[in-house]
Amino acid sequence: MWSPKIPVNAIDRLSFYLRTLDELIAGDVEMISSEQLAKQCGVKPDLVRKDLSYFGEFGRKGVGYRIVDLYSQIKKILGVDRTWNMALFGVGNLGSALIRHANFLKQGYRFVAAFDVDPEKVGNRLPDGLIIEHADRFEEVLKERNVGIGVIAVPPANAQSVANQLILAGINGILNFSPLHIHVPDCCRVENVDFSIKLDILGYHISSFST
Amino acid sequence: MWSPKIPVNAIDRLSFYLRTLDELIAGDVEMISSEQLAKQCGVKPDLVRKDLSYFGEFGRKGVGYRIVDLYSQIKKILGVDRTWNMALFGVGNLGSALIRHANFLKQGYRFVAAFDVDPEKVGNRLPDGLIIEHADRFEEVLKERNVGIGVIAVPPANAQSVANQLILAGINGILNFSPLHIHVPDCCRVENVDFSIKLDILGYHISSFST
Repeated sequence: MWSPKIPVNAIDRLSFYLRTLDELIAGDVEMISSEQLAKQCGVKPDLVRKDLSYFGEFGRKGVGYRIVDLYSQIKKILGVDRTWNMALFGVGNLGSALIRHANFLKQGYRFVAAFDVDPEKVGNRLPDGLIIEHADRFEEVLKERNVGIGVIAVPPANAQSVANQLILAGINGILNFSPLHIHVPDCCRVENVDFSIKLDILGYHISSFST
Repeated sequence: MWSPKIPVNAIDRLSFYLRTLDELIAGDVEMISSEQLAKQCGVKPDLVRKDLSYFGEFGRKGVGYRIVDLYSQIKKILGVDRTWNMALFGVGNLGSALIRHANFLKQGYRFVAAFDVDPEKVGNRLPDGLIIEHADRFEEVLKERNVGIGVIAVPPANAQSVANQLILAGINGILNFSPLHIHVPDCCRVENVDFSIKLDILGYHISSFST
């Protein structure tokens, strides 16, 4: 795979362009200019052009980019032109909603296992057909089902110990929904999703608007 | 309220310290040094000290900070030492999980309204007691219940139109769970939560690890 070195900040923008292009494909638009894409994504046109320059010069001046081509090129560059298997840890309210989140599969992410330690949950079948398994057999399941990403949706106090077990099992990508920092070695990448930090940021700005 | 000018990047770190202190309070720890807080949050001690310097010199050298004091000071600075009323737009899987997310209320964010346009959902009672209302009467409800934050969990194609209506109704803080960029005027702040962008970032890094 041809893989240029992309600056860290560009990666989330590229992923964001991908989401936007995905919606445009659904809407039957064929071509897009960097200016149009910039406007839809709320970033400066220069930045879009710079980010897209990692893909070489396959856009045509004055005409723009063919949306389906740009979409598949960005997927390839990001390494997401394949399906990633994911395992969920913690089948509470949030975990259950994540399992049912239709967009994941569309975007190439598929839950192939769901673990919990609650005996009342273990053995239950989820709406997508997965059966909740006890966390104590997770290591063999992860190997059997070729899991690449672990999704942590357990209570905060248990998040680090789940992460430790994932790392020992050779998983090096973690999506963390607990509000605490997870310590991992350099061979592992954690991405955090914390709604309440976003709410605090909103609270701060709304307070500033009104003073 | 005493309100120093805090750099944008420091705000999410302060919110993150808040989450960590919250867990420590639950665990009955009384004091913490900036080094300990830095370690728990995975940031450099110098950065923690710099961020905490916005609160003046109420930590004691060699002893550290009293956790409950630091916690309430950070809340005050961020303007989250109060309860914010929130309205949910879109009661799908994700929306339902958000309503049931126990941590929101603990952290001072309370859903006081939930809207949908699906006639099969309108009128249903949610587990927390809220009744799903039709989106067409949202404007008067937002005023009656003093809503400060709108939470958008509708399908991507409808996100911008919900945001437009929120802004017209005078809401200037939006938490957006749709994967698309929402255009808002300067008087409004949007924070985006997009799981799939986080997954793409993971995918990119895992691919890099293995090549």
